Amino acid sequence: MPGPVFPQLTIARKRDGHALTRDEITAFVQGVVRGDWADYQTTALLMAIYLRGMTPEETSNLTEAMIRSGAVADLSGIPGVKVDKHSTGGVGDKVSLILAPLAAACGVPVPMMSGRGLGHTGGTLDKLESIPGFCIILSLAGCAAQLRRIGVAMFGQTEELVPADRKLYALRDVTATVESIPLICASILSKKVAAGIDALVLDVKYGRGAFMKDKTRARELAAAMIAIGRALGKPTCALLTSMDQPLGRAVGNAVEVVESIEALKGRGPADLMEVTLTLGVQMLLLGRITADPAVARRRLEQAIADGSALAKFRELLAAQGGDVRVIDDYSRLPQAKIVHDVAAQDSGWVTDVDPMGIAQAALLLGAGRANAAAAVDPAVGLTHLAKVGEAVAAGGRLASVHARDDATAGAALAQVAAAFTIGARPVDRPPLLDELVE
Amino acid sequence: MPGPVFPQLTIARKRDGHALTRDEITAFVQGVVRGDWADYQTTALLMAIYLRGMTPEETSNLTEAMIRSGAVADLSGIPGVKVDKHSTGGVGDKVSLILAPLAAACGVPVPMMSGRGLGHTGGTLDKLESIPGFCIILSLAGCAAQLRRIGVAMFGQTEELVPADRKLYALRDVTATVESIPLICASILSKKVAAGIDALVLDVKYGRGAFMKDKTRARELAAAMIAIGRALGKPTCALLTSMDQPLGRAVGNAVEVVESIEALKGRGPADLMEVTLTLGVQMLLLGRITADPAVARRRLEQAIADGSALAKFRELLAAQGGDVRVIDDYSRLPQAKIVHDVAAQDSGWVTDVDPMGIAQAALLLGAGRANAAAAVDPAVGLTHLAKVGEAVAAGGRLASVHARDDATAGAALAQVAAAFTIGARPVDRPPLLDELVE
Repeated sequence: MPGPVFPQLTIARKRDGHALTRDEITAFVQGVVRGDWADYQTTALLMAIYLRGMTPEETSNLTEAMIRSGAVADLSGIPGVKVDKHSTGGVGDKVSLILAPLAAACGVPVPMMSGRGLGHTGGTLDKLESIPGFCIILSLAGCAAQLRRIGVAMFGQTEELVPADRKLYALRDVTATVESIPLICASILSKKVAAGIDALVLDVKYGRGAFMKDKTRARELAAAMIAIGRALGKPTCALLTSMDQPLGRAVGNAVEVVESIEALKGRGPADLMEVTLTLGVQMLLLGRITADPAVARRRLEQAIADGSALAKFRELLAAQGGDVRVIDDYSRLPQAKIVHDVAAQDSGWVTDVDPMGIAQAALLLGAGRANAAAAVDPAVGLTHLAKVGEAVAAGGRLASVHARDDATAGAALAQVAAAFTIGARPVDRPPLLDELVE
Repeated sequence: MPGPVFPQLTIARKRDGHALTRDEITAFVQGVVRGDWADYQTTALLMAIYLRGMTPEETSNLTEAMIRSGAVADLSGIPGVKVDKHSTGGVGDKVSLILAPLAAACGVPVPMMSGRGLGHTGGTLDKLESIPGFCIILSLAGCAAQLRRIGVAMFGQTEELVPADRKLYALRDVTATVESIPLICASILSKKVAAGIDALVLDVKYGRGAFMKDKTRARELAAAMIAIGRALGKPTCALLTSMDQPLGRAVGNAVEVVESIEALKGRGPADLMEVTLTLGVQMLLLGRITADPAVARRRLEQAIADGSALAKFRELLAAQGGDVRVIDDYSRLPQAKIVHDVAAQDSGWVTDVDPMGIAQAALLLGAGRANAAAAVDPAVGLTHLAKVGEAVAAGGRLASVHARDDATAGAALAQVAAAFTIGARPVDRPPLLDELVE
């Protein structure tokens, strides 16, 4: 039949397992933005995509159509290969706060677009906003200017970029169609490409505290993202990392900023540094700073040791209105009224720290969002979390709870205690980095 | 999590292939009617149901929840087993117009709820409304009173009955989720049961002119309807009938009323009578008029021969405001301005009449609806359709086209001519009745 592509026909073809054409996908994305597709037709197609999947070509066409739905940043005038890092989200994942200034200090221009926390995961934007004055809203022109001047910018998705994604994501969130590999790929990559990146390093987390519980699914997602990134001319690599205990020792907002600054000062927890440096090596390789991973690793370690990464963080804060004095005086960050320790009942070794239990405690304290409209309390959270494999004495500290009042403190204490398993025998530290997918 | 059932959780469970509980299904149907479920959540679940299916228990729970969404007719005070007949729709299918008065004349109370035509199929309500004055809107009380008085009523779905179905059907129609067996079952049976029937005879059509192109799918639908009918305490049986050429020799509205009256006068085309009488036998058996199919068949034939079926049709027209004079004077029905014959190019035998080609011609003339909002022209359509297996001479009539103007007449003539295949050798009349599913 000639004429317009009717939504029903596109839905029926995907429902029956066919690959949609580039024209069908373009008409869908434009229809979503213009309102020619009703929301109830959009969600029927999203469910059909969830259950029937998409070929790499379809996913690539979807990503391109989403990019074309809004403005696209042009960073081509800025020298260097612009590289961003994206994590699929976990508990205590503050890698972006460390890695953006660190990679920039090593010469990689980093236009880093981040999101807010939702559900059990924290969000880089929420953490940044716990720094007094820090503004995460940058225009495309402002972002480019800052990148040219200091080599790093950290910002949220603006209204101009990928309007199709905002619409689709809001509908996916309430129709159980979030966890679809092609839809995740298109959502992430369309935003990154529209923000002007040249290359992308992915941290694909799997395990109890990740969106992907299963490593096979995580690997599928990584492979799909890499394929689509390449199809779009944006070299992409992915690291699979375990999210079976919180990353680092702090979970919250200001408390994670403190841990990130400590990391930039060379005092970060081992697991956090391991993930950060491994991802950083890939950023330097993709950014063509060096072709040798060992050299890249040394450059990163050097940038921490010589203070240049911390200096870059200071520049970042200054450029985006943040109070740079927090770097040397953590008391200038929001402080919780109540701080209580969670004590171990028995002596032994930490054999498990359930990341979902820890995330629930943080949510309960007010550090996270139960829904997209909720506000986050920047001061509350957890610090001094004991790690799997560490020895504890009866009465010794498993964690500290930072709370706004006694009621939430008490509830969180119980929740945190329940998340820990203490065994009679030592256990090995679990492997954290799994594999690099290129 | 205690508290309300969130739509997302129900959608996710069906998405993952789980059977929904009775409570989940009830919350869904109530949510659709009350607006607690957004349309975009409803269609995501409908697509998940389309692709994941439903168990008989789920389908039965869905049907019951839909029945409870509105008023339910109580016909228990009316003596006899109230039996309705339902067809899944075809081209030239006017069986309801003949069978309702015929079965009623044999003693079966027939509360027949029908629909309008859509796409390639005609609708009983549109055909009835081509009779001047005939009113298809009956209240539940009015229907019961008429059934008590004359034993037959023919009407459309009222606002009171199954509001959930109207809402769901409108959404299914625009999201490619119509052809789902559990959704079809629940839609049909909820309306029939809410209308107060005790038993149901189904005409499940398959072939090019049916919604189910495939006999296996048609048999699945029949089996599902029978299982759900029984679960609801409403004995149901189904006849699988072929829809590979139009039924009878007329396609349209007033032209099909004429053919139906002719059938009641004992002059119906063989294929139409065969389907009508076979379905009628099942109505008499379910209606407990007799337990012997041969006796039932003779009763039906007798009711046509002695004029009692025609008399019942006259009573039906009178009761619902229709002009009874049309029965003896077809010129009182709407007449098309232009009538042209379609002539055969060659001598030979009719080897195929494509029902979709004929339906397209009728649609083109204005006899059907391209969309739910369109109006139907009661006068136009096709008559004198030659049947597969009949001999034709070059220049002889394949059909007559009844049109409102020359433009549509010309286009329809070409369309009708193209629907016929004339072969050099005789072919057998194709089998029409396939099997009875009980």
